[in-house]
Amino acid sequence: MTMSDKFGPYQKLLKRAHQIALVSTACETLNWDLETSMPSKALDFRAEQLAHFGGMKHRSFTAKSTGEWISACEQHGFETDSLEAANVREWRRLYGRATKIPPSLVEKFERTRAHARAAWREARKKSEFKIFRPYFEKLVDLNRRRADSWGFAETPYDALLAEFEPGARTAQVKTLFAELRTELVPLLTAASERSAAIPKDILQGNYPIATQQRLNHKIAEAIGFDFQAGRIDTTTHPFCTTLGPFDNRLTTRYNEQDFTQSLYGILHEVGHGLYEQGLPAEHFGTPLGTAASLGLHESQSRLWENHVGRDPAFWDRWHPVACDHFPELKRLTPPQLAAAVNRVSPSFIRVEADQVTYDLHIIVRFEIEVRLIQGELAVRDVPGFWNEEFEKMLGLKVTDDSQGCLQDIHWSLGDMGYFPTYTLGNLNAAQLMHQAKLDDPNLNKDLAAGKYDSLLKWLRDKVHRHGLRYLPQDLIQQTTGKPTGVANHVDYLRQKFAAV
Amino acid sequence: MTMSDKFGPYQKLLKRAHQIALVSTACETLNWDLETSMPSKALDFRAEQLAHFGGMKHRSFTAKSTGEWISACEQHGFETDSLEAANVREWRRLYGRATKIPPSLVEKFERTRAHARAAWREARKKSEFKIFRPYFEKLVDLNRRRADSWGFAETPYDALLAEFEPGARTAQVKTLFAELRTELVPLLTAASERSAAIPKDILQGNYPIATQQRLNHKIAEAIGFDFQAGRIDTTTHPFCTTLGPFDNRLTTRYNEQDFTQSLYGILHEVGHGLYEQGLPAEHFGTPLGTAASLGLHESQSRLWENHVGRDPAFWDRWHPVACDHFPELKRLTPPQLAAAVNRVSPSFIRVEADQVTYDLHIIVRFEIEVRLIQGELAVRDVPGFWNEEFEKMLGLKVTDDSQGCLQDIHWSLGDMGYFPTYTLGNLNAAQLMHQAKLDDPNLNKDLAAGKYDSLLKWLRDKVHRHGLRYLPQDLIQQTTGKPTGVANHVDYLRQKFAAV
Repeated sequence: MTMSDKFGPYQKLLKRAHQIALVSTACETLNWDLETSMPSKALDFRAEQLAHFGGMKHRSFTAKSTGEWISACEQHGFETDSLEAANVREWRRLYGRATKIPPSLVEKFERTRAHARAAWREARKKSEFKIFRPYFEKLVDLNRRRADSWGFAETPYDALLAEFEPGARTAQVKTLFAELRTELVPLLTAASERSAAIPKDILQGNYPIATQQRLNHKIAEAIGFDFQAGRIDTTTHPFCTTLGPFDNRLTTRYNEQDFTQSLYGILHEVGHGLYEQGLPAEHFGTPLGTAASLGLHESQSRLWENHVGRDPAFWDRWHPVACDHFPELKRLTPPQLAAAVNRVSPSFIRVEADQVTYDLHIIVRFEIEVRLIQGELAVRDVPGFWNEEFEKMLGLKVTDDSQGCLQDIHWSLGDMGYFPTYTLGNLNAAQLMHQAKLDDPNLNKDLAAGKYDSLLKWLRDKVHRHGLRYLPQDLIQQTTGKPTGVANHVDYLRQKFAAV
Repeated sequence: MTMSDKFGPYQKLLKRAHQIALVSTACETLNWDLETSMPSKALDFRAEQLAHFGGMKHRSFTAKSTGEWISACEQHGFETDSLEAANVREWRRLYGRATKIPPSLVEKFERTRAHARAAWREARKKSEFKIFRPYFEKLVDLNRRRADSWGFAETPYDALLAEFEPGARTAQVKTLFAELRTELVPLLTAASERSAAIPKDILQGNYPIATQQRLNHKIAEAIGFDFQAGRIDTTTHPFCTTLGPFDNRLTTRYNEQDFTQSLYGILHEVGHGLYEQGLPAEHFGTPLGTAASLGLHESQSRLWENHVGRDPAFWDRWHPVACDHFPELKRLTPPQLAAAVNRVSPSFIRVEADQVTYDLHIIVRFEIEVRLIQGELAVRDVPGFWNEEFEKMLGLKVTDDSQGCLQDIHWSLGDMGYFPTYTLGNLNAAQLMHQAKLDDPNLNKDLAAGKYDSLLKWLRDKVHRHGLRYLPQDLIQQTTGKPTGVANHVDYLRQKFAAV
C-alpha cells in the first residue's frame, strides 16, 4: 500500500490535518510576532486571538469524526511499515491524549499556568520561593491528574514524559541519568582544573551587533541554513519556530562585549532549524512531517552547536573570517579561541553552563520532577532538595533561589517531563555524531575544511526526512545500532575536557 | 436606547463581528509579515493560509443568520442617531454587498486578479501595454458585472466607488474634479516658475538609514503616534495596517541620498496611523470602530504630511533637530529646507508628484475609469487617452507606458473607484485644516511651536472617535458646515505656491 492508496477516511484525515496546520501555523506567526515585534499594548487582544485559534484547532482535531476516521484506518490494514501506518499510529496517540483529558481539566490547567507565570516572575525577581509555591503546588497536582487521565504503564511521570518524548520511560531515563552523574562528577573536577588557566574575560571586547549579525549569517549559511526558507531575528529568549513548510524562524540575543554568545545561540538554533528545514514538506502538518521528539530536536541543536561549533577545527576554519569582522580578535590564536569557548567551570545558571556541567543542571531538575509527581517530595521542600543536590554535584552553595530552583520558566508553564529531553539531546547528539564518523571516514576532514554538507546530508538521511515515521528510540536504534546511552557522550567529553 | 440595550440579535451581531475581527486581524498579521519579513519560499503556503482565512471570514459574515439578525435589529427600532443604528446601517450595507455578488463571480474576480498582477508586472517591466491588456479587459468586464450585482443609483461606477467611499456619487466627484482641474492647470504654470530657482538636487547628501530612523521616530512621536500601540518597519511599498485595537503598523522606504523621502513617507503613514489609533477600541471590529472611508483616511495622511509637515513652520521647529542628526544640513536654512520639500515640477510618476500636480495625476485616472466602466472607452485606447490628457494637463509627453498608464498596481488588483479617494483626501484635508484653524485661533501658534496635540485633539473629536457612525459626507458636512469642495484646497495651494 502506498500514498496513492486513496482510502477515504485516510484522505479525510490528511485534509483535516492540513486545515489544522493552516490554523496552527497562523498561531505560530502570531506568537512569533508577539515575541519579535508586537507593541506592548496589543497583548490582550493577541492573547484572545491565540485562545480563539487554539480552541478552533482543538475542536477540529478532537471532533468525533477524527476518531472514526482513525478507527477506520486502523481496520483498513495499512502495511505495518507504510507511511500511512505511521501517521495513523501517531494520530491515534495524539487523539487519545487530546480526548482523554476532560475539558474542565484543560481549562483549569491553562488558567493556572497563566497565573503561575506571573507569580513566578515576581518570585524570581524577589527571590522568594513562597510567592510561587501555591501555584507550583497546584500545577504539580494538575499534572498528576493529567497523567491519570492519559494513563501510563509504570509511573505517572511516564505520561508527562510522553508529551515531549514519545515512547520514553521514566525508569530508562533514571538509569541513564544515574550513569551519567557517576561519570560527570569526577570529570568536572579534572576539566575545571584544566580550564583554570583560561582567563574568564579572555573574549571581552567591543563587538557591534550589526557586525555580529553579518558573521552569524555567514556561518549559518555555510552550515546549510536556507535563508530563502527562514530568517533570524532578535529576542530576549532565543527560540526556533516553524510558520510553514518553507518558513523557519530563529531568534537570538546579542552581547556587545562577547560575540560568541549570539554565535553559539545561532549555531544551536540553526541546528533546530536544519531539522525543521529537512522535514519532508509534502507531509507538512502530519506526523510524517513533524520532528520525532524534543530529545531528537535537541540532539540536532547540540550537535551543531557543540560537536561542530565548539570543535577546535571550527576555529581553525573561521578564525580568519571572524578577524575580518572583528580585527581585535587577532590577539587570539585559533586554539585560544577554541579554548575560550570551551571553558569549564561550575555555575548557577543552566543556560550559561558549559558542556560538562550542563547535564548536572538537568539531572537535579529531573530528580525533583519525578519525586514531585510520585509524591515523594513536597513542593515546599524543593528549594532545600535543589540546594543540597546542587552542592553535591557542582560544589556550589545556592544562597538565592532566583539563582537556584526559581531560575527557569518551565515549571511556571506547567511543563514537567520537558527538562530531561535536554540531556537526551546531548546523549543523542554524541551518539549520532559518533555514528556519522563511523559511516563517513572523511567527515572529520570535511568539517575541518568547512564543508558541512556531508554531515548535513547524513543527518537529513538518517533523521530529518523521517519525521515521526519512527518513534525516537527506534530511529536511534536503527541509525546507531543501539538505544540512547551515555557511552559516546561521556567518551566525547572525557576526550575533549580531560584527556591528558 | 443605549449600548446597555441587550437586544439579543444585536448582541449576536456584535459577537460575530468580534470573531470575524479576530480572524481578519490574523490575516492582516500574515500579510504584514509577508511584506516585511517572510522568506521567499514561504509564499505559496502563506497564500493558501490567507485564502483559507478569507473564506472563513466570508462564510461567517454572509451566513443566513447574519442577515436575520440584521433584519431583526432593523425592526427593533433603535433610535435613528444611536450607535446601534449606525452599526446596523453599515452591517446592512456590507451584508448586501457581500451577498449580492454570486460566489462564482467572486471566484472569477479573485482568479483574474492573481493572473493580472503577474501580467502587469511583466508589462510594466517591458513597457508593453498589450501584455496587460487582455487581463485589464477582463477586469473591466468583471467590475461592470460586480457593479450590476451590487446595484447603483445612477451609473455603475457609483457601485464601485461605494466600495471605498460609502455614499459618494460619480456625478459629484466629476463636478469636483472638473472644477479642480480648471484651477490647477494655470496654478501649475505659476508654481513651476517659482520653483525653477530651487536646484533639483539641493537635498542630495549622505543620510545613513539608522539615523533617518531615529529622526523619523522622534518626529512621529512628537506628532502623537503611540509606539506602545504601533511600530514602523521597512518595505518597498509603504503601507499602514491595523492588527488589533492597539496595534497599528506603518512601513516606509529609505533613500540614503535624500532623507526627506522616508520622513514624508512616515508623516503620511503616521497620519493614517493616528486615525486608526484614534478609533474607539471598544468598538473594534464593528463599523463604529472602523475608519469612515478611504477619502477620510487619506485626508488624515495628507493633512499631517502636507499641511503640517510641508509648512515652513515645520522646518523652523525641526531644522535644529535634523541638523543634530545630519550635520551637513547646516548648509541649508529652514526656509531653504521648506522650499526644497515644496518644489513644484510636472513629472510622470504619481507617487513622486508634488502637491500641485498630484491631483492632476488622479484626475486622468478617474476619467479613464469612468469611461471604461460606462463603455465609452475601450481598454486598447487607454494608453492613447492617458498620454493625450496627461500632456494637456501636465505638459509632458509620455513616451513609455511604464511611465504612463502602467505605473500603478491598482488596476491589476482590479481596484476601480479607488484612485478618486486620493484627491477626495486632499480636498478633505484642506477643508478640515481650514475649519480647525477657525475653531482654534491658537492652532498656527501651537503648530509653529511643535505642539501638535491641539490639532490631534481636534481631529480625534471631529473625525477619529466617530468611526463609521456617520457617512463620510455627513461627517464633513457637520464638521466643516459644507460638503467636500475644492475651495479650501485651491486657496491653500494658491497661497502656498502662487502668492505674490
